[in-house]
Amino acid sequence: MKFICTQENLNKALNVVGKIINKNSTLPILNNVLLKTEKGRLKLSSTNLEIGINYLIGGKVESEGEITIPTKLFHNFVSNLPAGNVEIKLREDVLSVKCNGYKTNIKGLDAKEYPLTPKIDVKPIFKINSFILKKALSQVIPAISSSESRIEITGVFMDLSNLDKNIVTLVSTDSYRLAESFINIDKDSVNKDYKDILGNAISIIIPKDTIVELVRNLDDQEDDVEVIISEGQILFNFGNANIISRLIEGKYPDYKQIIPNDFKTIINIDKNEIIKATKITSLFSDISNNSIELKLMAGSKNLEITSETNNLGSNNTKIAVQIEGDNKDINMLHNYKSLIDGLNNISGDKVILKINDDNSPMVLTSDVDKNYTYIIMPTRA
Amino acid sequence: MKFICTQENLNKALNVVGKIINKNSTLPILNNVLLKTEKGRLKLSSTNLEIGINYLIGGKVESEGEITIPTKLFHNFVSNLPAGNVEIKLREDVLSVKCNGYKTNIKGLDAKEYPLTPKIDVKPIFKINSFILKKALSQVIPAISSSESRIEITGVFMDLSNLDKNIVTLVSTDSYRLAESFINIDKDSVNKDYKDILGNAISIIIPKDTIVELVRNLDDQEDDVEVIISEGQILFNFGNANIISRLIEGKYPDYKQIIPNDFKTIINIDKNEIIKATKITSLFSDISNNSIELKLMAGSKNLEITSETNNLGSNNTKIAVQIEGDNKDINMLHNYKSLIDGLNNISGDKVILKINDDNSPMVLTSDVDKNYTYIIMPTRA
Repeated sequence: MKFICTQENLNKALNVVGKIINKNSTLPILNNVLLKTEKGRLKLSSTNLEIGINYLIGGKVESEGEITIPTKLFHNFVSNLPAGNVEIKLREDVLSVKCNGYKTNIKGLDAKEYPLTPKIDVKPIFKINSFILKKALSQVIPAISSSESRIEITGVFMDLSNLDKNIVTLVSTDSYRLAESFINIDKDSVNKDYKDILGNAISIIIPKDTIVELVRNLDDQEDDVEVIISEGQILFNFGNANIISRLIEGKYPDYKQIIPNDFKTIINIDKNEIIKATKITSLFSDISNNSIELKLMAGSKNLEITSETNNLGSNNTKIAVQIEGDNKDINMLHNYKSLIDGLNNISGDKVILKINDDNSPMVLTSDVDKNYTYIIMPTRA
Repeated sequence: MKFICTQENLNKALNVVGKIINKNSTLPILNNVLLKTEKGRLKLSSTNLEIGINYLIGGKVESEGEITIPTKLFHNFVSNLPAGNVEIKLREDVLSVKCNGYKTNIKGLDAKEYPLTPKIDVKPIFKINSFILKKALSQVIPAISSSESRIEITGVFMDLSNLDKNIVTLVSTDSYRLAESFINIDKDSVNKDYKDILGNAISIIIPKDTIVELVRNLDDQEDDVEVIISEGQILFNFGNANIISRLIEGKYPDYKQIIPNDFKTIINIDKNEIIKATKITSLFSDISNNSIELKLMAGSKNLEITSETNNLGSNNTKIAVQIEGDNKDINMLHNYKSLIDGLNNISGDKVILKINDDNSPMVLTSDVDKNYTYIIMPTRA
């Protein structure tokens, strides 16, 4: 193998493929990155057996070849090289790198020992703008469960059953809160044959790590991302990279039943004020349940956010609100971390809080982004 | 106590006094900050019994008083408050804070329980520009020893015996390397009676933590810092703050004897190139001694920076240099971390390496800042 490219491109590729965490310490080759010439480019691949990432770099292939190199060492090395051309040459199991005055030899391991990532040869189900996908995925990340006893909620539920209406639904829940985000797909970006291709996989569960890697690597540009699903795997194609991941098997809970349709009280409140007040009040929350109190006195036009612990002190913050529906006494306890997670993902300056009673789920939405809904259960006193 | 000031000033004060680490877990009140009205201002103080920091805030004192408040809680709280006026009021042991819509009560502990910081009533020994002091202190921090068996080198040696020539010398060493930085003092900024005030304390040792706190808090402005020394204590007065610290007792090693006066070979090299090369080469250094090799072949005009480990690989970087004196074979091993520490503190684009032979100390200096010298011992192969 002999390949010439720029330090900038090689470094960008390693930023993408070089950060998968290898959880499988019995297979040390997973700490390596696979380099392989392919159709006039260099392909970098890494996998932890759950997720695989590939990245293609343009450059000049002078001779073909493949090798695996310790990822962390190679990444540290390349990121410190000066900008300019880098020449990579393989001699047996040693990768020689030349760049400006630098001459470096790095010992590799045989590419044949590296686990194969599965190939998916079906057509994309749909295409979606990178920025829109990134935003929707970010919105559902916080509510993903980390409970190992309920594996089916440790990922994001992607519901494709409304693709005929050009809608993809993303859902996450940890059973105390739920996030739902709709993505509107261009009509022309949906594969006409999607039902045939998907078969029973009309809704799937994507592991959290895959979602996090995607959000890390998708850019904020208008580029398209192709979404391909086949036989327990999902593939995201974007720019020079693709991410392939296994899906989580299992039945996602029937979440729709816990989203209330009607509400007794609807509160319109400034987003930054409620975030700031929640943070300050959380300093005086009970360590045992991290709860703060949302309080509204019947007829009042101020929402009070309060907490008190005997040994630290107390806080009470009043925020002016607009109220529709019943202006009755409200006295809800909420986990402040869950509340802030939801508030942070609301678009625009205002948040709408939809409430029935003190022990029923509260819904957070916004007039600016009606595609996103966050539902949070009150904690018990 | 009742006091009104701005959130910005209160937050700035807590940034200064709120970061001392309390190592003394048997005295929980040291986790608190002392608030005390003083001459129309509010004084915030904190101490870990080794260092004490005080900060004065301007504002409106409506009634006098004092209390101690949990530092971390108070700092988190104030930093999250909106900008604007903050009203602080003490009722028994509870501090009530009002700011915009926020009403907060924080439980305190009696100020009388708080350890007194010693008062120093002597005149300053000298005054020095804040930026110059900060730079000189930063330059000697890396070489301070952390060895607990030799307490006298765990601080910075401040030599005042050349104050009659308007020079203060700062020195640090961990016995493998040594940093020396001269500070030029304005003639008018030296106290005429400094010898009488200092007595035997003509050279002192200041603990590392004190130096680090000083560097963290000194600004890059032209403001003056007053340096006051008395009875085993040193006091730095600057802006609205002062830092008081105990001194380390003991005799600092006679370091001058290890700084060579003559050199056989003097190498002039680009600073950024040698730093980059050292970082890259360090990736292939032996983990057991972190050493890399500096190599010059007799008659060559390139310095080679190399390392090799069997299991990882090797690196060799050639950097063009200018050589004065003997252009003979050089083959030195150096700890790369120590080398980078020294290089990072060199001013300007060029570094001068002064060498005698492979097993003698190497001196790093610069034509741009002749006040700073860094000496590093080669490691053994």
